[in-house]
Amino acid sequence: MKKILKLGIVGGGPNSWIGNIHRIASRIDGKYIICAGSFSRDAKLSRSFGSTLNIENNRCYSNYKIMADTESKREDGIDVVAIMTPPGSHQEIAEYFIKKNFNVISDKPFAATYEQAKKLYSTITKNKKIVYGLTHNYSAYPMVRMAKKLVSDGKIGNIENVNVEYVQDWSKGNVVTAKNAKKVFRWKIDKKIVGSSAVLNEIGTHAYHLSNYITGLKGSSLFADIKKFHKNINLDSNAQVMINYENGAKGIFWTCISARGGNYGLRIRIFGSKASLEWVQNDPNYLRFNPAKGAVKILEKAFHEADFSSNFARVKPGHPEGYVDAFANIYNEVADRILSNNKKKNYYYPTAYEGLLTARFIHNCIHSSKNKKWVKF
Amino acid sequence: MKKILKLGIVGGGPNSWIGNIHRIASRIDGKYIICAGSFSRDAKLSRSFGSTLNIENNRCYSNYKIMADTESKREDGIDVVAIMTPPGSHQEIAEYFIKKNFNVISDKPFAATYEQAKKLYSTITKNKKIVYGLTHNYSAYPMVRMAKKLVSDGKIGNIENVNVEYVQDWSKGNVVTAKNAKKVFRWKIDKKIVGSSAVLNEIGTHAYHLSNYITGLKGSSLFADIKKFHKNINLDSNAQVMINYENGAKGIFWTCISARGGNYGLRIRIFGSKASLEWVQNDPNYLRFNPAKGAVKILEKAFHEADFSSNFARVKPGHPEGYVDAFANIYNEVADRILSNNKKKNYYYPTAYEGLLTARFIHNCIHSSKNKKWVKF
Amino acid sequence: MKKILKLGIVGGGPNSWIGNIHRIASRIDGKYIICAGSFSRDAKLSRSFGSTLNIENNRCYSNYKIMADTESKREDGIDVVAIMTPPGSHQEIAEYFIKKNFNVISDKPFAATYEQAKKLYSTITKNKKIVYGLTHNYSAYPMVRMAKKLVSDGKIGNIENVNVEYVQDWSKGNVVTAKNAKKVFRWKIDKKIVGSSAVLNEIGTHAYHLSNYITGLKGSSLFADIKKFHKNINLDSNAQVMINYENGAKGIFWTCISARGGNYGLRIRIFGSKASLEWVQNDPNYLRFNPAKGAVKILEKAFHEADFSSNFARVKPGHPEGYVDAFANIYNEVADRILSNNKKKNYYYPTAYEGLLTARFIHNCIHSSKNKKWVKF
Amino acid sequence: MKKILKLGIVGGGPNSWIGNIHRIASRIDGKYIICAGSFSRDAKLSRSFGSTLNIENNRCYSNYKIMADTESKREDGIDVVAIMTPPGSHQEIAEYFIKKNFNVISDKPFAATYEQAKKLYSTITKNKKIVYGLTHNYSAYPMVRMAKKLVSDGKIGNIENVNVEYVQDWSKGNVVTAKNAKKVFRWKIDKKIVGSSAVLNEIGTHAYHLSNYITGLKGSSLFADIKKFHKNINLDSNAQVMINYENGAKGIFWTCISARGGNYGLRIRIFGSKASLEWVQNDPNYLRFNPAKGAVKILEKAFHEADFSSNFARVKPGHPEGYVDAFANIYNEVADRILSNNKKKNYYYPTAYEGLLTARFIHNCIHSSKNKKWVKF
Repeated sequence: MKKILKLGIVGGGPNSWIGNIHRIASRIDGKYIICAGSFSRDAKLSRSFGSTLNIENNRCYSNYKIMADTESKREDGIDVVAIMTPPGSHQEIAEYFIKKNFNVISDKPFAATYEQAKKLYSTITKNKKIVYGLTHNYSAYPMVRMAKKLVSDGKIGNIENVNVEYVQDWSKGNVVTAKNAKKVFRWKIDKKIVGSSAVLNEIGTHAYHLSNYITGLKGSSLFADIKKFHKNINLDSNAQVMINYENGAKGIFWTCISARGGNYGLRIRIFGSKASLEWVQNDPNYLRFNPAKGAVKILEKAFHEADFSSNFARVKPGHPEGYVDAFANIYNEVADRILSNNKKKNYYYPTAYEGLLTARFIHNCIHSSKNKKWVKF
Repeated sequence: MKKILKLGIVGGGPNSWIGNIHRIASRIDGKYIICAGSFSRDAKLSRSFGSTLNIENNRCYSNYKIMADTESKREDGIDVVAIMTPPGSHQEIAEYFIKKNFNVISDKPFAATYEQAKKLYSTITKNKKIVYGLTHNYSAYPMVRMAKKLVSDGKIGNIENVNVEYVQDWSKGNVVTAKNAKKVFRWKIDKKIVGSSAVLNEIGTHAYHLSNYITGLKGSSLFADIKKFHKNINLDSNAQVMINYENGAKGIFWTCISARGGNYGLRIRIFGSKASLEWVQNDPNYLRFNPAKGAVKILEKAFHEADFSSNFARVKPGHPEGYVDAFANIYNEVADRILSNNKKKNYYYPTAYEGLLTARFIHNCIHSSKNKKWVKF
Repeated sequence: MKKILKLGIVGGGPNSWIGNIHRIASRIDGKYIICAGSFSRDAKLSRSFGSTLNIENNRCYSNYKIMADTESKREDGIDVVAIMTPPGSHQEIAEYFIKKNFNVISDKPFAATYEQAKKLYSTITKNKKIVYGLTHNYSAYPMVRMAKKLVSDGKIGNIENVNVEYVQDWSKGNVVTAKNAKKVFRWKIDKKIVGSSAVLNEIGTHAYHLSNYITGLKGSSLFADIKKFHKNINLDSNAQVMINYENGAKGIFWTCISARGGNYGLRIRIFGSKASLEWVQNDPNYLRFNPAKGAVKILEKAFHEADFSSNFARVKPGHPEGYVDAFANIYNEVADRILSNNKKKNYYYPTAYEGLLTARFIHNCIHSSKNKKWVKF
Repeated sequence: MKKILKLGIVGGGPNSWIGNIHRIASRIDGKYIICAGSFSRDAKLSRSFGSTLNIENNRCYSNYKIMADTESKREDGIDVVAIMTPPGSHQEIAEYFIKKNFNVISDKPFAATYEQAKKLYSTITKNKKIVYGLTHNYSAYPMVRMAKKLVSDGKIGNIENVNVEYVQDWSKGNVVTAKNAKKVFRWKIDKKIVGSSAVLNEIGTHAYHLSNYITGLKGSSLFADIKKFHKNINLDSNAQVMINYENGAKGIFWTCISARGGNYGLRIRIFGSKASLEWVQNDPNYLRFNPAKGAVKILEKAFHEADFSSNFARVKPGHPEGYVDAFANIYNEVADRILSNNKKKNYYYPTAYEGLLTARFIHNCIHSSKNKKWVKF
């Protein structure tokens, strides 16, 4: 019989949208079974929610520490914990489980601040027994990984421009006032929970990770301009950043949570000396490849000239894959890594180090915007 | 604790692509657990494959009849059987399980011939205890169901033109000769297995079902022209059909398995007296709505003006869903129907009756093409 | 000084939309000057309209015969006549001018019926002195000619499927009744003026010409189904046709004038043994090229791998060209042909023979639809 | 008879691409006749080129001053001069003609530097007799003007984000070295000719003008980062700019001439409190309109809900218009303005004041980039 990983969950309770996504992602390839969870600080609520997931009452916890302690003592205790709480608690929860030698899958951002990120990174790197995976799920789309492959194979040449954006409308078209802001934005308005910057920690972190993941470029300096939603609402809502990369490339980064009227969403373009690339999440199964000299190519997931992407696809070309398929790729690879314990194989799931870099980027953006000057990475 | 349905599988063994899709679809919402299977006529192979799915050896069968007999006697026997064998055996397998009062999820086509379809339909309608669902999965995309809703709400007006196509290249760009045809097309070249017409049973059935599912129109007559791949290869490869509907609408239907160079795929357009609609599987989260008088609208899954589609979506707007998400919608609804046993609720999964209609359509196409004349439905 | 061709116009008066298009097309490359015209049977109206085009009063005629007679006697008489009347008079006007040895540019369709077309074709071929060009303008888009080139260069291989459509809504979203039909459709409802079939002569002729122009395939038989707009309105409004080509290819042709809610417009797809092509007029500067084995390419006008299209482009890649640019390509080439009198050079403007073929196609469609059977070409 | 404007040309000789565009634009609506030109400093070349345009020898000049002097003395002298030389001479030529009371159509940029722009602007505003039009031709696309109308009608609400870019590859995919740079970039590498910044004066000026033209927003401060193509090549090749607008909106501006592999081209997005807009030149007949609450709309030129755009369209919806059609709109309106001399009518052609603003923007960008700080407008 195949070994199925026993998964515990922290967060992701009744009001959590991302909770359901994590659970679906864990199920898709049949490599995990959800056995325990800390879904709420209210013990009754945690149990009632757990029962909808078929989790036994005595493994539905109201405190993640008790969960870690208890599960570490059970013979059939969990193998992996998946953390899907808001950013403010990522570090402390991850560290508690890591110290008890649980493997960790954590929702992004890596941590709520750069300070926390550095501590967590240190904790992770010190423990060689555990596997840590970060659900920067957009990086797990087959055609994003194809893009990464094209870059690393030199097909784009020397990168000269990077243009990435993640643009949403969190208020869904509604008018937001200082009065109703708390209702509209919920915990995202509380810096202790959302961390150093709402727009950057919630979606900017994805955009920056995506650009780093594909290009592998190192930044040298950045200039940021962060805007608040409204002077009376404590919420960063728009950030535009210019980036200088060590190789001389120039970058433009834009993220916004008040972009009315559309899910322009997540888009990345990379221009190199040999070709350019464009990928947009709204049309995720295609990757536009524009050679310097030659017709534009539309590479399609798992299709001709995109064989590499087949490694991350479950469905044939012509059959679209989406958000949960990509998310599941991370669960799938973390499972393979835990089960095979083969550190030498190439894994593509986002790592703690990648998380640390995004936290540093956000930290630098805040610093630059406040001081209105270029800041070194 | 929530009741989880115990699922048995017939077919879907090591060489089956669709097998993995069914399994993923069954897992996504956590409403099924795969407990038994008849994966191969080779007992050893069935067991070894079953073990990769964590199925106990004694519930890995090499014969679907023994599986049905055994499972019906177990106290913890399966609740539902999912049939994912090639078309030729759909009828006999489904009937065997239905007679033992198992609920059935069957891959398409409903049956390999119209004769078989009529028999199977009769068996299903006679047994009031069981639920039967047919995985015409394309009909389960959120925006396809949105299209159906717009039609039934009268937003399109009286339908005047229906244009549907499903176009693929089964040989993946390779040259096919009478010599290598068996290798390229596998069982699809054997009429006993693939049924009355390869192109119509394999993909045409989806296109026709989709058009019926959305429009609800009744056909009155059709004129078909079916072409073989090559005179020495016994494989229908192209079918074009004109359809007259009872309400006076005109239809064009096209399906092809030798369309070089692309996954033009599955596309449907419906033109009515008030508006027209377009949906293409390659971009499944959007539905083009063109009012007679007014700007074109791009409706997006779970977004403004497409609230109804949220009922079939797991992910927020701006976050694409794909093929397996749609497939899982059928498993999800069949589970709800079995568990709630509420026959009055509106369910949207494809039914045996819909399967019967597609079999009749294919039957009529073959008849028309042979006789070169219009045939009554 | 460069020789500028003196152009006379028949039709295209105050209420004519196409008249302005012809005039713009004649001006774009500076090879014509409009000197005379027969814009109306009302002499005063013809003069007043002519004066808006700076045409002297005595060269504004109210009768095309007098115009031909008079201009043929003037030393500075016109070199070319452009005919832009409704279809019913194309033959008689063209023949009258041809007999006086004027070069002719004619709007489509070639003639209103196949009978007229055969006569006109005979008149044209008998007169070796004149140049005749037919404004099937869609064939003059740079990327349509690129498509023709790819086909003739063998890049598509042996053609197996042709799919062409031209779909419009002539009533602009309005409800049409037997009562207001004459107001909505104007002369298009009068068979003497519009010819044998409104939808086929007005737009179907373009679609069929386009498919022939690009593929060069010869048809062997067709099966057509033509529908009237409404039983009380004498107007063919929808035609769907299946075509067998001599090389074994299958075709689907669709044209409609009552397709609510959109300008789906003119689209052609060609599938061959090596690749397939797609071009849509709504996005005319791009041509989708799908090789049997390899990524989809988007060829762009005058850009990499589409050098041939530069021959028909005035503007750089990245700078779109449209309908009048294509229309002007025909005027441009006819001028070159007249001025150089080089019969051996490759010209790409549509010819009388191409016009004859479209008239034959329409004739066969009407015959097939009436008799509900396959008709030989 | 209608009054036809007599047009003289300065520049636009044999090697000029833009020269042909201006001439086509002047011809399309039949409101100009080209009568004179200064096409080259070589008298013979000017005459030989002029003769291809049917211009009499004695009106083919080798010096624009002699042209202005001579034409001002002829009774049938030109009414308008169109200047299509490189940027460095725009000011001096325009001023010379304005002082002789000729109307002027000038290619962009308004002037090569802000100093020159201020002088030219002063000259223009002092002469009340003449009409001055600037060919920022992208602003004349029907759907750009539709965008401007939607903004001014308040349909977008208060603008919060502006995102504009114009991205090209001037070297057409070729490798450029310090050695071959002069051959590849021609006069664009000479600051005296191209002006203060190659990328900003040549294409950045279009992008900035477009954003100003549509939004009407006033800038308050900007932060720019300009990059040279290569340290040994004196050519600005990439500029990214953040803009603060007086109303609080944030802007991102990007222009590049070394973006390999594609004509990503000219794109603008505007986000307001009520809706957002997107227009891209590659698909110019459509405008994406995303209401805060409601489905995305695709407005089409001259079609439903875009009636205003019909004012600037020559062709029906479903029939694309392109670059020269837009360019001709400017010639058309300048002609109307000259002929009617109606200063109160709304004209939409770009003005000297708009030209002055773009020159100031470029000046400020250079200053900001050099000093690495925010600069006031």
